[in-house]
Amino acid sequence: MSTPDRTVAIAIDLGGTKVEAAVVTADGLVVEGSVFRAPTGSSTTRDEIAEAVRSVAVSAHAALGEGDRLAGVGIGSAGPVDLAAGSVSPLNLPRAAGLPIVSIVSEAVPAAPVRLALDGTCIALAEHAFGAARGARNALAMVVSTGIGGGLIVDGMPVTGVSGNAGHIGQTRLRSRTEGSPATDGTLEDIASGPRTVAWAQAQGWSGGTGEDLAVSYAAGDDIAVAAVRRSAGAVGEAIASVSTLLDLDVAVIAGGFAAVGADYIDLVRASVRESAVYPYARRVEVVPTGLDGRGPLVGAASLVLP
Amino acid sequence: MSTPDRTVAIAIDLGGTKVEAAVVTADGLVVEGSVFRAPTGSSTTRDEIAEAVRSVAVSAHAALGEGDRLAGVGIGSAGPVDLAAGSVSPLNLPRAAGLPIVSIVSEAVPAAPVRLALDGTCIALAEHAFGAARGARNALAMVVSTGIGGGLIVDGMPVTGVSGNAGHIGQTRLRSRTEGSPATDGTLEDIASGPRTVAWAQAQGWSGGTGEDLAVSYAAGDDIAVAAVRRSAGAVGEAIASVSTLLDLDVAVIAGGFAAVGADYIDLVRASVRESAVYPYARRVEVVPTGLDGRGPLVGAASLVLP
Repeated sequence: MSTPDRTVAIAIDLGGTKVEAAVVTADGLVVEGSVFRAPTGSSTTRDEIAEAVRSVAVSAHAALGEGDRLAGVGIGSAGPVDLAAGSVSPLNLPRAAGLPIVSIVSEAVPAAPVRLALDGTCIALAEHAFGAARGARNALAMVVSTGIGGGLIVDGMPVTGVSGNAGHIGQTRLRSRTEGSPATDGTLEDIASGPRTVAWAQAQGWSGGTGEDLAVSYAAGDDIAVAAVRRSAGAVGEAIASVSTLLDLDVAVIAGGFAAVGADYIDLVRASVRESAVYPYARRVEVVPTGLDGRGPLVGAASLVLP
Repeated sequence: MSTPDRTVAIAIDLGGTKVEAAVVTADGLVVEGSVFRAPTGSSTTRDEIAEAVRSVAVSAHAALGEGDRLAGVGIGSAGPVDLAAGSVSPLNLPRAAGLPIVSIVSEAVPAAPVRLALDGTCIALAEHAFGAARGARNALAMVVSTGIGGGLIVDGMPVTGVSGNAGHIGQTRLRSRTEGSPATDGTLEDIASGPRTVAWAQAQGWSGGTGEDLAVSYAAGDDIAVAAVRRSAGAVGEAIASVSTLLDLDVAVIAGGFAAVGADYIDLVRASVRESAVYPYARRVEVVPTGLDGRGPLVGAASLVLP
């Protein structure tokens, strides 16, 4: 079947458990049947991940339709990233540190511009263009999941910084660090991520094992589960209050599986923002759930190269 | 004496202890003999402060030379500010809340454009144009004094946000808040400002009374004074590490009298940034003292209207 001429991008999203590639239209739609996926993981070597990236990129390239004009390839990656070097060193892929993802993709999809950004930046771009941050001047988009990541829009534009790592809200500090502990101690991710919240509940005597178990216990009103979920949402709200104090945010968008651990998780975050912010201007930030399905990272990566 | 034709601005800086106005050239120089000052304070009423602002603005206007073309009036004010309303409610001038400073200045200096910004934004503008943040893409400028304030440059431009209050680093959270305490509890300013550091030292048994006393005790190696200064610099470094994590900063500039409490205060801040930041990219921020004399606020206010 022939399609009318249109401009599209190939989008690639590299994360701790999988790498995906897809064809995305200028309207922000992921083309059906164009999504390709390969597993990644903490034990995967750099060569294996390079091959996984290459294979999904080649498959998405082959999925282009006859009338598709390719604007380029946009890559979103778990951080840290190094824009100048075109490489990434995702924290959850320790054996892939320094992966030269831009040159890998440039070889797989020749003769097309390739642009790299932090996955958090891509999510912020997608929420700003198509999701819950439309029309915002200053916005934070964050993901609360196995880790906690984020991206920023300031004065309507994505913020990357020279290295490309702006938006890493999970590594901002909410508590003092215990002497001798790693630098992550007391950061938002350390307190509020899914696995850390589960671990905290277990330390209080809760007998479940996963975030899904915690959701069930929370819905049943289990005291420890309630305290654990409030602790996570409270910390997320404190971090948003600080970012809103610093950047005078219009909106903070929350995505990620763990933000669904309780039906009122977003409400708890909102309450914490109100309590934690010193100034009224910082409390005006709207805290909202993601306005995208799970394809935000791909759509945002595509927007790096789409006109 | 006649001067060659030149473009100048009138700059106004409203703070907790005084309001100043001056004529500033497009090169960022405060014109000699053009600085006028009136006292403010926590007991000053809104009418008294309005009159103080009016009088220094009129005096600076009268100090314009024959060849001076007035580009406009730039106002920097202690926050919070309300750009849409053209009013300010400085925390340390509680009786002046809602001061309509833009209309006061517009009446005092008719027929000139008037622009308002947070004083922290003005300081960031001045450091970026003429001081220690020249050439930076992303920068934080902060003042450590009676309070702790700041301003941000992102992608070479000042960040204000819709309300104008972006940059309020003193009200970002570093510790959890004690139940029932005010929202300021655990914020950077609450931990690290001059008065709060003096109060902490006193609570440990130190017998001095002022920041100047603390500087003397610190220089003499007094144990409590050393711990107090390290505590302040440590907290400032933690806050900078979080902002650098969030914004991928090139430089953080520190001004303010309390940053001179010890000769190695900036070194202590640097060490804290290195220890607190999780990622290498966030540790690359250069922590430097102000590159301006005390006229940063006036020069930055002027740059709001200078070409």
